[in-house]
Amino acid sequence: MSPLQAEAAKHMTLAPQVRRPETDISPVERLHALVAADMRATDALIHERLSSAVDLIPDLARHLIDSGGKRLRPLLTLAAARMGGYAGAGHVNLAAAVEFIHTATLLHDDVVDESALRRGKVSANIVWGNKASVLVGDFLFSRAFELMVETRELSVLRILARASSLIAEGEVMQLKSANNLAASEEHYLRVVSAKTAELFAAAAESGAVLARGPGGYAAALREYGRNLGVAFQLVDDTLDYSGRQALMGKSVGDDFREGKVTLPVILAFARADEPSRKFWKRAVETGPQSEADLDRAITLVEETGAIADTMARARAYADLACDALRAVPPCEMRDVLAGVAGFCVERAY
Amino acid sequence: MSPLQAEAAKHMTLAPQVRRPETDISPVERLHALVAADMRATDALIHERLSSAVDLIPDLARHLIDSGGKRLRPLLTLAAARMGGYAGAGHVNLAAAVEFIHTATLLHDDVVDESALRRGKVSANIVWGNKASVLVGDFLFSRAFELMVETRELSVLRILARASSLIAEGEVMQLKSANNLAASEEHYLRVVSAKTAELFAAAAESGAVLARGPGGYAAALREYGRNLGVAFQLVDDTLDYSGRQALMGKSVGDDFREGKVTLPVILAFARADEPSRKFWKRAVETGPQSEADLDRAITLVEETGAIADTMARARAYADLACDALRAVPPCEMRDVLAGVAGFCVERAY
Repeated sequence: MSPLQAEAAKHMTLAPQVRRPETDISPVERLHALVAADMRATDALIHERLSSAVDLIPDLARHLIDSGGKRLRPLLTLAAARMGGYAGAGHVNLAAAVEFIHTATLLHDDVVDESALRRGKVSANIVWGNKASVLVGDFLFSRAFELMVETRELSVLRILARASSLIAEGEVMQLKSANNLAASEEHYLRVVSAKTAELFAAAAESGAVLARGPGGYAAALREYGRNLGVAFQLVDDTLDYSGRQALMGKSVGDDFREGKVTLPVILAFARADEPSRKFWKRAVETGPQSEADLDRAITLVEETGAIADTMARARAYADLACDALRAVPPCEMRDVLAGVAGFCVERAY
Repeated sequence: MSPLQAEAAKHMTLAPQVRRPETDISPVERLHALVAADMRATDALIHERLSSAVDLIPDLARHLIDSGGKRLRPLLTLAAARMGGYAGAGHVNLAAAVEFIHTATLLHDDVVDESALRRGKVSANIVWGNKASVLVGDFLFSRAFELMVETRELSVLRILARASSLIAEGEVMQLKSANNLAASEEHYLRVVSAKTAELFAAAAESGAVLARGPGGYAAALREYGRNLGVAFQLVDDTLDYSGRQALMGKSVGDDFREGKVTLPVILAFARADEPSRKFWKRAVETGPQSEADLDRAITLVEETGAIADTMARARAYADLACDALRAVPPCEMRDVLAGVAGFCVERAY
């Protein structure tokens, strides 16, 4: 076997095997276990720093932060720092900052989307109102930068400040193309790269930069995070048309009701016959919608193969995420991160 | 001459201590003149950095940024840096960042307050919708941190990150005490210190820190900015009950219609007889309001001396701002900054 083939062989055993039957825990749980102490410290710091003399702030923030999110983004930061040999404490600050940025964007998203549910709970904007959600989002965003300043590492501040403005750009792009069935797959991927994948990329990259790993280490982790983020969002977009979504604490059909033109809709619309195109135009672009419309939409995205093709693209991005890890010397953490990419796609089944 | 400049010119005869008859320009204009080249560079940088491939972002941001704001906060940053002997270029980045943070808070404020007018123009949330205002605010806030990172000065990042979270706390505090006539003057001053004065303080302090001035310089500038900020907000709150407000491009009675319990209302309510207390409770706490209510409110805040006493407090804070400048060696910039504090109160007449 050539070195390249050897590398490829290693990779082959990395990607498909995403479960370990003997332990029966998911790769995300394995990743949690590998950085358990760091994650406990991160959680403690998160709760310390969302405190405020203004009770409403921790009340509202905790509603979301304690609602059973997987802490996937801060996990990436911790894993990237540890795998790069980092021995300091700044990665805990950075992980908490990443979770604060994520939470701030969720709070603002729910205002923008007028969502009523988030992680299976009534969303904060419904409980406390849009105004409080906007302001507490701003608070968490500011606290994120305070946490980063404490690391005294300008490089990570640069990465996450840039990520934050790209995320906002992505959200505005999405807003502009809402209710527009003419949006292209390319446009959709640009939106996803910015609004979702950028924080995954920055979370992993900033942990790697903190660790000052070998040449190419930070770039590899960034690439892993970015592709994982795209895969994650593609899967999320299929789940909105899936009965499995209810099991995950999210309501089905949110995107559809909000007129979000995600990839399943773009593909289904492109492949639709005339009556179906009329249906999509009424349901997504002009309204009104009835509750029965969601069932028809689910049938159409399934029948046209739009769901299967979106999942195939998600799988391709998960593979790219695994490919990026080839630049990293083999270790348990690397295997687990590869497993996470596979699992992220698998969760849709 | 702009309406504001015309107004400023009219004021000149009212407060001889802040006027220079030989130049006939206001202290704010004199400050602009002293840092004219820096301010041009700041404006150029502002326009460069609000650019985005997503047109909606610069369109919306420019609507507010080019609407004739006085650039008071970035002026403080530039002045503090120059007066402290700063010879680098980082103060321009910092001044642009301060204006971005200010603009972001205005965009989010207008969403929170459901305002229809800002600086005499239809506000961005009315033109582009609340969603876009929230997201473009997030974008500007992120860009502010990118600009600060470029200065490579962690100390200024620390100051402005902390200021940003205090501002958000102040806004949430204000939200909680909206429509509550039982709010105390002390509570009101806490809100004002956080939501308004903190950015004035941080703008001046961060410029001073960048300059690495002599011992106590940054603290003096911070104290100047803080007191100026409180005075500025107190005057703003009286202007909402003043016919002069219309001349300044803001609608009269916004605070009243939103049920904001500002100091004029707190004082007027505390001094009210029973029928007037009933009026305030209906108009501010329970509703409904009629258009005639604003006239009665204006009469009550005048007759009870609430406006005069709020202005007296504003004057006291302006004096404290001038006192803080005593720690700074005499120079033309120092005199002009003292004049700005006086002018800031004078603008209400």
